[in-house]
Amino acid sequence: MIIVMQSQASDADIEHVISRIEELGLKAHLSKGTERTVIGVIGDERLIKKDQFSLLPRVENVIPILKPYKLASRDFKAADSVVDVAGVKIGGKRIAVMAGPCSVESERQLMATAHAVKASGASLLRGGAYKPRTSPYAFQGLGEDGLKLLAKAREETGLGIVTEVMESAEVDLVAEYADLLQVGARNMQNSKLLRTLSLIRKPILLKRNFSATLNEFLMSAEYILFGGNDQVILCERGIRTFVEYTRNTLDLNVVPAVKQLSHLPIIVDPSHGTGRHDLILPMSRAAIAAGADGLIIEVHPEPAEALSDGDQSLTPKAFDRLMKEAGTIARAMGREL
Amino acid sequence: MIIVMQSQASDADIEHVISRIEELGLKAHLSKGTERTVIGVIGDERLIKKDQFSLLPRVENVIPILKPYKLASRDFKAADSVVDVAGVKIGGKRIAVMAGPCSVESERQLMATAHAVKASGASLLRGGAYKPRTSPYAFQGLGEDGLKLLAKAREETGLGIVTEVMESAEVDLVAEYADLLQVGARNMQNSKLLRTLSLIRKPILLKRNFSATLNEFLMSAEYILFGGNDQVILCERGIRTFVEYTRNTLDLNVVPAVKQLSHLPIIVDPSHGTGRHDLILPMSRAAIAAGADGLIIEVHPEPAEALSDGDQSLTPKAFDRLMKEAGTIARAMGREL
Amino acid sequence: MIIVMQSQASDADIEHVISRIEELGLKAHLSKGTERTVIGVIGDERLIKKDQFSLLPRVENVIPILKPYKLASRDFKAADSVVDVAGVKIGGKRIAVMAGPCSVESERQLMATAHAVKASGASLLRGGAYKPRTSPYAFQGLGEDGLKLLAKAREETGLGIVTEVMESAEVDLVAEYADLLQVGARNMQNSKLLRTLSLIRKPILLKRNFSATLNEFLMSAEYILFGGNDQVILCERGIRTFVEYTRNTLDLNVVPAVKQLSHLPIIVDPSHGTGRHDLILPMSRAAIAAGADGLIIEVHPEPAEALSDGDQSLTPKAFDRLMKEAGTIARAMGREL
Amino acid sequence: MIIVMQSQASDADIEHVISRIEELGLKAHLSKGTERTVIGVIGDERLIKKDQFSLLPRVENVIPILKPYKLASRDFKAADSVVDVAGVKIGGKRIAVMAGPCSVESERQLMATAHAVKASGASLLRGGAYKPRTSPYAFQGLGEDGLKLLAKAREETGLGIVTEVMESAEVDLVAEYADLLQVGARNMQNSKLLRTLSLIRKPILLKRNFSATLNEFLMSAEYILFGGNDQVILCERGIRTFVEYTRNTLDLNVVPAVKQLSHLPIIVDPSHGTGRHDLILPMSRAAIAAGADGLIIEVHPEPAEALSDGDQSLTPKAFDRLMKEAGTIARAMGREL
Repeated sequence: MIIVMQSQASDADIEHVISRIEELGLKAHLSKGTERTVIGVIGDERLIKKDQFSLLPRVENVIPILKPYKLASRDFKAADSVVDVAGVKIGGKRIAVMAGPCSVESERQLMATAHAVKASGASLLRGGAYKPRTSPYAFQGLGEDGLKLLAKAREETGLGIVTEVMESAEVDLVAEYADLLQVGARNMQNSKLLRTLSLIRKPILLKRNFSATLNEFLMSAEYILFGGNDQVILCERGIRTFVEYTRNTLDLNVVPAVKQLSHLPIIVDPSHGTGRHDLILPMSRAAIAAGADGLIIEVHPEPAEALSDGDQSLTPKAFDRLMKEAGTIARAMGREL
Repeated sequence: MIIVMQSQASDADIEHVISRIEELGLKAHLSKGTERTVIGVIGDERLIKKDQFSLLPRVENVIPILKPYKLASRDFKAADSVVDVAGVKIGGKRIAVMAGPCSVESERQLMATAHAVKASGASLLRGGAYKPRTSPYAFQGLGEDGLKLLAKAREETGLGIVTEVMESAEVDLVAEYADLLQVGARNMQNSKLLRTLSLIRKPILLKRNFSATLNEFLMSAEYILFGGNDQVILCERGIRTFVEYTRNTLDLNVVPAVKQLSHLPIIVDPSHGTGRHDLILPMSRAAIAAGADGLIIEVHPEPAEALSDGDQSLTPKAFDRLMKEAGTIARAMGREL
Repeated sequence: MIIVMQSQASDADIEHVISRIEELGLKAHLSKGTERTVIGVIGDERLIKKDQFSLLPRVENVIPILKPYKLASRDFKAADSVVDVAGVKIGGKRIAVMAGPCSVESERQLMATAHAVKASGASLLRGGAYKPRTSPYAFQGLGEDGLKLLAKAREETGLGIVTEVMESAEVDLVAEYADLLQVGARNMQNSKLLRTLSLIRKPILLKRNFSATLNEFLMSAEYILFGGNDQVILCERGIRTFVEYTRNTLDLNVVPAVKQLSHLPIIVDPSHGTGRHDLILPMSRAAIAAGADGLIIEVHPEPAEALSDGDQSLTPKAFDRLMKEAGTIARAMGREL
Repeated sequence: MIIVMQSQASDADIEHVISRIEELGLKAHLSKGTERTVIGVIGDERLIKKDQFSLLPRVENVIPILKPYKLASRDFKAADSVVDVAGVKIGGKRIAVMAGPCSVESERQLMATAHAVKASGASLLRGGAYKPRTSPYAFQGLGEDGLKLLAKAREETGLGIVTEVMESAEVDLVAEYADLLQVGARNMQNSKLLRTLSLIRKPILLKRNFSATLNEFLMSAEYILFGGNDQVILCERGIRTFVEYTRNTLDLNVVPAVKQLSHLPIIVDPSHGTGRHDLILPMSRAAIAAGADGLIIEVHPEPAEALSDGDQSLTPKAFDRLMKEAGTIARAMGREL
């Protein structure tokens, strides 16, 4: 941590900061520049609070030097992590595609989708049983009945299932059914949920909140790793910007950025990321070309009848085309799909 | 709801849309313009899903006409709502100031703060027992012990208490202690928590998520109202923008905007809204001049020792000055503080 | 244009709006819904100002139906436009790569770069003679001397040149030297510059402002088309968001979005778009996979010595690798590079 | 400037950085922490380019210590600057209100507005002769005829005039007529215009670009100060965020922030800042309570007939009410209006 003193700081002000640093059992390192005096704080930065210094007299600024996360960083683990979800390896050479409806609506809808996405080559089946909705007037999901239908679809198709868990009290129930537990974007910083998930032995799909910085995203992964669960897959699903043409702005820059900073795999959700079914195909290709380890795509047999997210769902036929085009890009990248 | 057809839409395309509208038991109203045909859908818009039409062939756009919320709107209730929190009326002539530490840290810290803010004229005592933190390495709050200390502070000072509840399973426990239950910004769209809070008989302080639009903010209030709890107070606490000087961008525009669209009271949190103790005073004055019904301010006896949010906390002395200056603006607005 | 009346609007209020519409020589079309009366305005929407109606009593909202641009739209011209820049076709099957230094600094620097990018397969040479800089203390460009060096590099290498023009008074001078005149992001809405460029017979590279919506971007193209210059190439170069890891957030979503709405070609600038040399390669691949018609890349023989933008420049060697990898993706897309 | 080395940096990497620093005639100051080595660069930071170091091997990050502006800072000049515009002092005890139409449309419109705002107590008359418009189909201003009408209005009312200048070639012409030359938000970083304005002897009103950070805003002021013109008034007019209810998000936080960092006066434009006439009054009060030195307000005798910005213009009657309410807040702040 670096403490920058104001230009008017006196020797006494500087002494005051140094004695505070030493009081805390840390070491100070002084550097007098032409316009500012700068004091380095030597010690474990994650245990130092910025405001222990920023509020002292004549302190202009306190600048952290280290990233706030440790277990999620490449410094901690240089090799790419590969997460196994029901036999599907995520983070390796093969690009994984998770597909299925936004919400589980009925047995008929789910089975039709599951068989279709399986036939097109999807690796995992997604579907929501608990739905976080903006409006109290909207469909809120089938709950445990939805989970049972997902389990049945797994039995019929052999596809592992991905589904969202919305609060810590439901973790055990959802973990009974799911192969991969999804933390939705709105829950990315639900610390109690993250802590509970850190204690189970199932892989976690952590979606980026639509206004999370990269540091915040990786800090949420850190919560899960810190508790002892190292099976974390990250997912970019669009950020909130001033842009209005797309529902969100899919931020593909985060894919190579995560690859630099972290060993964790990252997949991309172009359905939520754009909110427009007609942008899913090109943005899926782009995600793979940017280096993503997988895709998660909303597919519905009849999007215009969907109880949620119809606008951003593909028909099975459009999904089949996506798999072919995405496969071509994957091969150009030296990967498989 | 208005359906705009593409310029190339044929009569058959238009007929298709109309028959779909009628299938759903609604009425269609056709209008041919010079460049586009537009079809009005007549019926209860809150029950119609946009994508039932947007995915039909040759539909260019589907535009909602009504606001998505109803119970929270001025159309539904023209008069200002006034919420009673432990005898303090919020939304009336008197501006309410809630003050206290970010986190309850110890009995000594809490009592010192409680007595100080009471002496300066605060109406309610704030303090966090359950803390949503970005980092797993940071202080996570005292939990129920914190609630007990808050209850003790109420006993000693007579100030009603405001504290955050973080998930539905904890609502009963927190409601036992708190006079006003706070939904934090990160939980603004936690639909299960909102539904649980809609069933209790205590007032709720709903903080705006840092990337929530006004519609989303009012839709979260709608969840609570819809379940039967009409004691909702809104709180603006800063939005996430590209601006880096302040931790968040306090959006005071939302204050008069809420006053136009809704009957609910709204207060402002300049501590989180700016993240800088040295901006709290001017932004508090501005909040009152914009028409806010109250303030919520972080106060700590020794900000540099605070376990959280020291940077955005006032000392008791600075808070006392704030109360005086805010009072002057309140009186210029024809209100009291 | 659709006028939505407030729920309290009386028959007289509605009549008032209708007579105003008719006064303006337009036709009104009335539709009474269950909660709101809606009035359609029939006539050329581009000539109607929204506030002619929005300020009338009891008007709740005025909603435009048409896109504000016409000549830039796919409705106006269905086939892709192809722009010829010094014999290089942009918008066709072949993906064009423009490369070169941020600023022209010296003959030695420019020639070294020009020969290198030519050898790696670039189609055009970029380089700035007039530089818009944030700081008055920074290098501001060589001006006309820089243009002369660019002309010399063209002579030596045969590469057409792309360079920025910063104000209308300089258009003639820059047009004398450049094959493609660039409007920088900061000038995207400089209407006088756009109007001047609309009157010349050289192709224009229009960069998206970092906070421009898609409508605003296409409206700036409309200025140039409206004046009679139909040789416009769009360029995405990153938008400003809350994200701090990248200098800007490269918004690849705009590429397929432009392809839907407009016939104009669009290229991508991953140097400015990310501000990080280590993200240029993956984002270049992603841009092509998203459907971009070209790339514009900063290359400098010694980035650490560059007078501007070193952080986001590739070395000639890294650029050579980019050309190979981008070529592989281009071929997977059925295109060439 | 602080250079942070990667954790894997060897002694040779560190030596390499140090010798580079010394090559540039600067001094290095080494500090070895528990996880990172940090090197301070001692010398005039404004002359050092970050990428001279950030591209060296094993450098993780380069962090500037100083603000990039100097002449605009409080460090440079501690006392508040007061700018005299045609006898009106801006930045002192009295709050200045500039009012008038968005565009000068006709003599009748301008004179009616000028007399009305003068009667209500405005200090200066605003009005646009050159208009930067998003659409080529919109009214582009009267040009020099507009300037002449403004001069005539000054003669009749005695009010000094404020009007926009859009490019460097027009500075002399506009300076002949205007008392205060406005740089519009879109031109905030037009460096040639800023340089030209730095050479004249008239005061400048510099509007913040809608996506400018505070540093960028002050750097644009620095351009004008650096050239020798110290009569700069800053103006906040709303930033672009995800919020859609208001046209822009008026960022009042910037007012006290500018007061901390700079000696320059700052005024607020709630017309552009919100884009809604019904929010101008509360946000004007809030601006004054936040510490603004003035307001600039759009007023039109018949907003529904305005050729531009009718939606965000006040009628003379509403402006008169605003002056009264703003005056009450000004007095509560110990100022006058």
